Amino acid sequence: MSDQKPAKQRKDAGGILEQFGNNIVTDVNAGRNPKFVTLTRTRSNIKYNDKAGILSLGDAQEERNFLNVAQTKRFMQTIAIAAKCHKFVRENLSTSIRGLFYQLKYSLGEDIDENIFNEQSESNPLIEDLEVALNLKREDLKLNANRKGVVAGNMRVIDKFGGETVEIDVSKSGRSGWAIPSDVDNDIEFADVKAKYVLSVEKDAIWQLLNQDGFWKKENCILISPQGQASRGTRRLIRKLADLDLPVYVFNDADAWGWYIYWTIKTSSINLAYMSKEIATPEAKFIGVTMSDIEHYSFLKDLTMKATDVDLKRAQELLEYSWINKHKPWVDELNKVLKTKTKLEQDALQGPRLTFVDDYIKDKIKNKEFMP
Amino acid sequence: MSDQKPAKQRKDAGGILEQFGNNIVTDVNAGRNPKFVTLTRTRSNIKYNDKAGILSLGDAQEERNFLNVAQTKRFMQTIAIAAKCHKFVRENLSTSIRGLFYQLKYSLGEDIDENIFNEQSESNPLIEDLEVALNLKREDLKLNANRKGVVAGNMRVIDKFGGETVEIDVSKSGRSGWAIPSDVDNDIEFADVKAKYVLSVEKDAIWQLLNQDGFWKKENCILISPQGQASRGTRRLIRKLADLDLPVYVFNDADAWGWYIYWTIKTSSINLAYMSKEIATPEAKFIGVTMSDIEHYSFLKDLTMKATDVDLKRAQELLEYSWINKHKPWVDELNKVLKTKTKLEQDALQGPRLTFVDDYIKDKIKNKEFMP
Repeated sequence: MSDQKPAKQRKDAGGILEQFGNNIVTDVNAGRNPKFVTLTRTRSNIKYNDKAGILSLGDAQEERNFLNVAQTKRFMQTIAIAAKCHKFVRENLSTSIRGLFYQLKYSLGEDIDENIFNEQSESNPLIEDLEVALNLKREDLKLNANRKGVVAGNMRVIDKFGGETVEIDVSKSGRSGWAIPSDVDNDIEFADVKAKYVLSVEKDAIWQLLNQDGFWKKENCILISPQGQASRGTRRLIRKLADLDLPVYVFNDADAWGWYIYWTIKTSSINLAYMSKEIATPEAKFIGVTMSDIEHYSFLKDLTMKATDVDLKRAQELLEYSWINKHKPWVDELNKVLKTKTKLEQDALQGPRLTFVDDYIKDKIKNKEFMP
Repeated sequence: MSDQKPAKQRKDAGGILEQFGNNIVTDVNAGRNPKFVTLTRTRSNIKYNDKAGILSLGDAQEERNFLNVAQTKRFMQTIAIAAKCHKFVRENLSTSIRGLFYQLKYSLGEDIDENIFNEQSESNPLIEDLEVALNLKREDLKLNANRKGVVAGNMRVIDKFGGETVEIDVSKSGRSGWAIPSDVDNDIEFADVKAKYVLSVEKDAIWQLLNQDGFWKKENCILISPQGQASRGTRRLIRKLADLDLPVYVFNDADAWGWYIYWTIKTSSINLAYMSKEIATPEAKFIGVTMSDIEHYSFLKDLTMKATDVDLKRAQELLEYSWINKHKPWVDELNKVLKTKTKLEQDALQGPRLTFVDDYIKDKIKNKEFMP
């Protein structure tokens, strides 16, 4: 059980966007070249931060100028995006990055003969530019990301939404659980989080199995499934729960996807390195399944699967990352896959009986048998 | 608003499985060849049932015999599956078809040298055999399908789950909505469904947009998103809501996926033709978006997209189906796509303002501008 830290002050996205716009206007009025600064997001500026234990951006900056022929169009497009987001924030209405794209395509088409946005691939990187330049998340700009992920456990959600406040008792969400939204920061609070730890389970089917068996009640944990790769919202929620000093355990397949999902939750990913501090949980531990499990649970020997080329390639890649190969258990684990050319799914634990999955997790946690 | 019909008697899956097993044992004890009968699920036995307005199986039957060398292994495998499902029903624990596969692989490995299940592709069709032979759904056999789909609106869910009964007020589910589970029939009830109609919205992003704007409150409707192709659970829920005499409107993209999702909700699909009666909603109407919308909303002209080869191929295919080409509006619509080689997304309605989507839907419903 954990005392809750006070909620951080919510960011004033509207005010930040206004300041951004005012700076541009001031530049224009003073006859200066309007500009803003963002951080470089190319691979060369993405580093593993050993101290923080996350992938993050280095210090390399880039300036976006209006009076630079190569940048003029993108500069103007970025300002158009900022203006739209400011409108969304004022109206308190969110949309998707697809919805934003259509608004940009529409509104600019009114006065200008040429569409300045033709493809969404033009607007997406400029949204990221803004996120980084303004130190705001897309969700703060009222741009929802795809949502995925589900929770069960003893906690309440206080959701100020659509002009109404609803309180959701996540412990009373039955077979469905509470679906994790895109934005878990703005106009939403998590209260009475009464749990000893957070368990993230890769597959929704295994989450359902544990939920029906009341695993989270018996164990007093918050049971999450990212339902595959973790969405931004799910990663952010795990981060927020870790901020309440709850240990985070991740239970995935021993294969390319399972490892990737784990390391993404733990250290963030290349694509979202610019917001790792908000979504990475370096405290997370991997509880399984592992190839070493076969030594303890001999029935698993008959339930391994042939590793695919993707699994083997990923294992090789992970062995090259300094933040992974510094951990001997991971080197051993990945080498076992490369040597035996087999992999193991978490579903296999259902072999002897469905509730064996429960016992496996409980034993791992009791005996602190984690991978770093 | 609609009075609710009394809930149908839940099927006694345990009893049906026991009867199935007893029949086999009786055959064996009497020295007869154990067998059971299922319906043929190959393409040749799948017909469009004009009267019911759904794709369904014809009368062609197949016998599964133990004493038929070509069938012996599959017969034995089917009995093993039935035995496992019987155990799940008795224990009141569900799993996935992947979980079942691992149980089969495990348990048979105990006594027999050779694995009789090596791939899940062996067990999947045998599960369907059982579903058809026993007139039960996979969910009745405690085998969960992938779940997807979300609901907002004035209704309550009474979920008897994990030894507890929870009541969920779907109108108080905030930004997340209520996530539609795999099984919406067993140990679950829907009560106080107070709505004038059901609206199914292809994309989750558009569902979120309508939900935040309180569309379902203002319009008094049940707002569903299948979040892409509709899961079995979502189709079954739409069918159950239609059984309460609520009109069902479907709001999708005007492209290959949008049409496919609509026709799957309405008439069911080839793959699930064996259970169409339970999951098809032939009463459903298509409210848009359509290529004809461009004539009414001229801004949409600038917001069309280039149709892909998949879109054009699908349009051509749909024009060949008798249950589609009998409707002139659909013939015109599909021909417009083929002629202009363009398509339209529902997201495009956000062009002028985010809430334009609301007005579009309201107008269509008010003016009864539906496609059949």
